[in-house]
Amino acid sequence: MHNIAILGFGTVGSGLGEALLTDRERLARHLGDGLDIKYILDLREFPGHPLGDRVVHDFNIILNDPEIELVAEMMGGSHPAYDFSLAALKAGKHVVTSNKEVVANFGAELLETARQNGVRYLFEASVGGGIPVLRPIINEAVLHEVRSVRGILNGTTNYILTQMRIHGTPFADALSAAQSMGYAEANPTADVDGLDAARKIVILAALAFGVIVKPDDIPVKGIRDVRPEDLQAAGACGGTLKLIGSASRECGGLLISVRPCFVRHDRLLAHVDDVFNAVSVDTGVLGEVVYYGAGAGKLPTAAAVEADITDILSGSVQSQEALTWKAGSRDDLCDASLVSYSWFISGGTDSRITEPMTEEAVKKLCAAGQNYYPCL
Amino acid sequence: MHNIAILGFGTVGSGLGEALLTDRERLARHLGDGLDIKYILDLREFPGHPLGDRVVHDFNIILNDPEIELVAEMMGGSHPAYDFSLAALKAGKHVVTSNKEVVANFGAELLETARQNGVRYLFEASVGGGIPVLRPIINEAVLHEVRSVRGILNGTTNYILTQMRIHGTPFADALSAAQSMGYAEANPTADVDGLDAARKIVILAALAFGVIVKPDDIPVKGIRDVRPEDLQAAGACGGTLKLIGSASRECGGLLISVRPCFVRHDRLLAHVDDVFNAVSVDTGVLGEVVYYGAGAGKLPTAAAVEADITDILSGSVQSQEALTWKAGSRDDLCDASLVSYSWFISGGTDSRITEPMTEEAVKKLCAAGQNYYPCL
Repeated sequence: MHNIAILGFGTVGSGLGEALLTDRERLARHLGDGLDIKYILDLREFPGHPLGDRVVHDFNIILNDPEIELVAEMMGGSHPAYDFSLAALKAGKHVVTSNKEVVANFGAELLETARQNGVRYLFEASVGGGIPVLRPIINEAVLHEVRSVRGILNGTTNYILTQMRIHGTPFADALSAAQSMGYAEANPTADVDGLDAARKIVILAALAFGVIVKPDDIPVKGIRDVRPEDLQAAGACGGTLKLIGSASRECGGLLISVRPCFVRHDRLLAHVDDVFNAVSVDTGVLGEVVYYGAGAGKLPTAAAVEADITDILSGSVQSQEALTWKAGSRDDLCDASLVSYSWFISGGTDSRITEPMTEEAVKKLCAAGQNYYPCL
Repeated sequence: MHNIAILGFGTVGSGLGEALLTDRERLARHLGDGLDIKYILDLREFPGHPLGDRVVHDFNIILNDPEIELVAEMMGGSHPAYDFSLAALKAGKHVVTSNKEVVANFGAELLETARQNGVRYLFEASVGGGIPVLRPIINEAVLHEVRSVRGILNGTTNYILTQMRIHGTPFADALSAAQSMGYAEANPTADVDGLDAARKIVILAALAFGVIVKPDDIPVKGIRDVRPEDLQAAGACGGTLKLIGSASRECGGLLISVRPCFVRHDRLLAHVDDVFNAVSVDTGVLGEVVYYGAGAGKLPTAAAVEADITDILSGSVQSQEALTWKAGSRDDLCDASLVSYSWFISGGTDSRITEPMTEEAVKKLCAAGQNYYPCL
């Protein structure tokens, strides 16, 4: 019997619990052994829930139980999620998580701790929710130089931009609609201002390039300044605007950013709408490969965590060495202001695509009331 | 040192040889040991080629060399590719291949032989070329019921349809253009009449549902009858026409087919153009996940085979049990004529989307000169 513990029994944690109960027989067949959720750590009680009798309030019960092989950290936030994960790894327990905040900020240390203790730290659900991108990117990066990883990494902002494009709705109204649909939180800052996407692109860049930088160290711009008329003008210029997380090697460093970009209609990413996400990986050898699917949601996220658990407990040893990240700093990043792009200038009938130039140059070119966006 | 042999040194085989030479150091680091191409089986000689001194003409030299751990079958065609693969597996050697004809027709037997001999038979490159779909689908199918697998599985026909749509070119002219671009073969039948896509959908269905049927047993229709005016009418009805390989569970059996379908613009598959391929996998839990990329080509195909080799030699044991296929027959297939779809009827200004009905019913509905296509 494989004994595991779930830390945090909110939306994602309870979703995982339910998925593991539902799939119990398939799992047992695949693992050749049963899987038991021995503990659930939460401050609350869940009377009447089929897993209600597993609830404990003291993490040390889990930490000190040698029967616990694996801990699924579903708490969210940095603390105590990071601290509990570190302690579990040091105690020789595998850890899986959907917590992008912890992976983005402490991933290098947690992976190194896992390596030192002969256990694994996996986090498929932290990037792209239900889209299985983690393993393919690791597999690619082992063999081939990854040129770039780019994607639509946040469903809330993609939904808002889609509504603005189709209905001409201003940003504030589209945001309200997203909130009433349950696609955006009451405090939408992490989504709308790009922080959620920043955490994800930092993790994707680490998978591709082996260096993890802090989300706070990369340039991040959200979608608050995008106007419906910008989307209309983009359409007339043969493309659309998408919030793009982007990581590539440029001018001797890593260029990592989140910002709204002009995406031509002949790129598949231009057609990723509503709450869906997509990740595009470019290797010289394979060319562009795109992974598309639901980026969030209780069931897809639970399924991604479940896949990590299965992977570990079935002994399907994805080379953990490939998952060693160097903790990067600003010195690993190249100066975005030196890089030249083509730009989409949005200004009514004067809208156009420029020759490649720096951001400073395009800024000077723009008249009052014109917005500019780099072309993907 | 890991010793391997390549069977067949044509486009794909030599591409693999070159990829393994180029990536020699990365591979050695990842595998913890070097990899040597000890033999190349081909009828020809390759004087001056860096691997020219490895060429042998007798398969028994490879079969009887206990140092050979793995055989990469890159010959194409059923015979002797199937026979050599079977012999190699029985001799306890792993086999990897890009040969969809062999996998589609003999996959169940070869996988079972691999299992019995404690070795592995992998074929990522046989479906989707450079798009890594095999492992994700296996992983999904282990845990969750796959509802359907659908895709644009042939680059040649997708290129032709794209040209017909954009330029209004008739089929015959678009085919000539594809041939002059090197996208279509002098004898284009396998592509244009759907056989290539049929082999791939049969393999994908086997990955998803565990049963492999013969490509000859499924209904297959190519793109010869698609007219530029059908594509134009489809556009006016909010979609486009794509050659779709489709496998799903319906009416107590598997519904597997290849035929041109109407795909609405709000489906990502509608936007997969030119020679690109895409595979859409629908599980109840994850929803739709789409994988997109180059479906063919020397480098992507070689890279996919290389990934299989790395996977096996690094001991990253993708559960081979999940790769056990029952050899299916016509009895496993449900009768497509009983299934109701919505249909796109193409007939100039009278073009329309119907209510769900059987093919027989829509046929009666069509006037002379009208074509009909099922809606995806």
